[in-house]
Amino acid sequence: MNKNVFVGVDIGGTTVKLAFIDEIGTIQHKWEIKTAREEAGKYILRDVSESILTQAKELGFKKSQLLAVGVGAPGYIDVENGVIIEAVNLGWKNYPIQKELEDRLQLPAVIDNDANVAAAGEKWKGAGNGADNLLAITLGTGVGGGVIAGGEIVHGEIGMAGEIGHITSVKSGGASCNCGKTGCLETVASATGIARLAMESVHTKPQGYLKRILDEHGNVSAKDVFDGANQGDELSLSIVRDSTEHLGFAMANLANALNPEIIVIGGGVSRAGTLLVNYIRQSFDKYAIPLIAKSTTIKIATLGNDAGVIGAAWLAKQKSAH
Amino acid sequence: MNKNVFVGVDIGGTTVKLAFIDEIGTIQHKWEIKTAREEAGKYILRDVSESILTQAKELGFKKSQLLAVGVGAPGYIDVENGVIIEAVNLGWKNYPIQKELEDRLQLPAVIDNDANVAAAGEKWKGAGNGADNLLAITLGTGVGGGVIAGGEIVHGEIGMAGEIGHITSVKSGGASCNCGKTGCLETVASATGIARLAMESVHTKPQGYLKRILDEHGNVSAKDVFDGANQGDELSLSIVRDSTEHLGFAMANLANALNPEIIVIGGGVSRAGTLLVNYIRQSFDKYAIPLIAKSTTIKIATLGNDAGVIGAAWLAKQKSAH
Repeated sequence: MNKNVFVGVDIGGTTVKLAFIDEIGTIQHKWEIKTAREEAGKYILRDVSESILTQAKELGFKKSQLLAVGVGAPGYIDVENGVIIEAVNLGWKNYPIQKELEDRLQLPAVIDNDANVAAAGEKWKGAGNGADNLLAITLGTGVGGGVIAGGEIVHGEIGMAGEIGHITSVKSGGASCNCGKTGCLETVASATGIARLAMESVHTKPQGYLKRILDEHGNVSAKDVFDGANQGDELSLSIVRDSTEHLGFAMANLANALNPEIIVIGGGVSRAGTLLVNYIRQSFDKYAIPLIAKSTTIKIATLGNDAGVIGAAWLAKQKSAH
Repeated sequence: MNKNVFVGVDIGGTTVKLAFIDEIGTIQHKWEIKTAREEAGKYILRDVSESILTQAKELGFKKSQLLAVGVGAPGYIDVENGVIIEAVNLGWKNYPIQKELEDRLQLPAVIDNDANVAAAGEKWKGAGNGADNLLAITLGTGVGGGVIAGGEIVHGEIGMAGEIGHITSVKSGGASCNCGKTGCLETVASATGIARLAMESVHTKPQGYLKRILDEHGNVSAKDVFDGANQGDELSLSIVRDSTEHLGFAMANLANALNPEIIVIGGGVSRAGTLLVNYIRQSFDKYAIPLIAKSTTIKIATLGNDAGVIGAAWLAKQKSAH
């Protein structure tokens, strides 16, 4: 390999994804290792560092061709100082990840929250296509988010920016949320939230599609709801309408304040694709200022599991440019 | 004068406010001129430039002591190119204000929307006290806003960021808004909106405080509503509660996404002071993520009419630092 590369690292609860990515964002090589969660995660960065150096050697990279390393990790992070305040999944608490990686690799390192890093990946090489003003929303088990304004990730005062999943969608009588509030967007638009809406209403249509699924499988998932909606099942469609009404409302209100070029929707629920985007669009257009509705594109994320490593490499590139 | 200064210019529909402001944001001298609106505003910048040079001379500034000029103007602005796309109040359309000022004054010039400039002023020397993450909301005839993230004004893709007044507050059956939608925050939280809520409900309490005001003055203003609330008048209190419930909801949802250190409330309605902040706070705390509720300060703006010139000088300072 005769290219210079950035190292993108995406640390998850079970695997760490890694990649060597060139200066224009093309993955030159990617691989995974197991996340060593034993003993409060004290071996994770040792494993990551050794794996990076081994792979580089095997692929014929000189050390000088590795320019910087970027890391996305779950949890609450002090980005400025490169410290993970708390990552419950990994067992880390007040862990100076940037310093340890810089010591081990003798490379500049930078770290950010995994939702922000995924947003940066989609911005750089995914659906965002280089957009400097972008919102990313991940509809998975929960609802995560990342805000990019003027080409930079917005972190906020204590690093909590991007908590789009905890925008209030149901003002009163909403379901409880892990964050301590009720009625959060997450309770009605995550995979879990959509499944909950389905389970709450499935008995109202005893002959319906979702009831059949429930009887066969013992539960109803978000995927079942979108499958039903695609087949024209009325109850499924009404759940999709309800959920996307809340999504479009939250997204439009953010867009009125931030005027993004593009809103990128990722996560498991985004596999529903065009159906999902079309319903969100209807609600978004109702609540966004007409000029903003016209100028905002809503798209499904395109990078899938690579968003994290690509976004992490983008961070590394930004850092080495400064 | 032996100090270097920036020139802050705040162009309004009837007057232009100007000031010489030093590098730490202290106003050295301020004055006003009439806005020359005749002939589609073609003399405004001539008057502004001549006035700056005359004042500088009279005060004993050498030309080299004027470092740069910043301008806040109403309307829709292409900040990057320094062009006003449209400012209906001034008669300007596709007007290259930055270039004309640079030609006339032989100084670097920068221009931004008046709401953004006021936000920057409060950030630099007002209630924001240097905060890098700040939301500013102006409750006047309409509801304006400015978003500062990571120390920079957020402009968005087509310069429309900060349209906090058009966040949807009343999902269905809301009052019509100038923007083409219904139920915008502006329709329930501007001075006009609060007066409208009062006029709609005043007849439900024929013996009440607001009905007496209506009979005496022929109408009810936002100020009357806050005066009534301060005296414990029930109808006034219920209008304040309704209006601040919407304000707190919109502000909390933005704070969940942007995590500002401080939210600054300005404009005529903000003269209601502590009463206003306390009610907004109640609603905000209900809808913000607990950690964000705890870390966000809500304050009344402190710069009054000087926010524009100070913010404009801040812009000029930023520009000359680059």
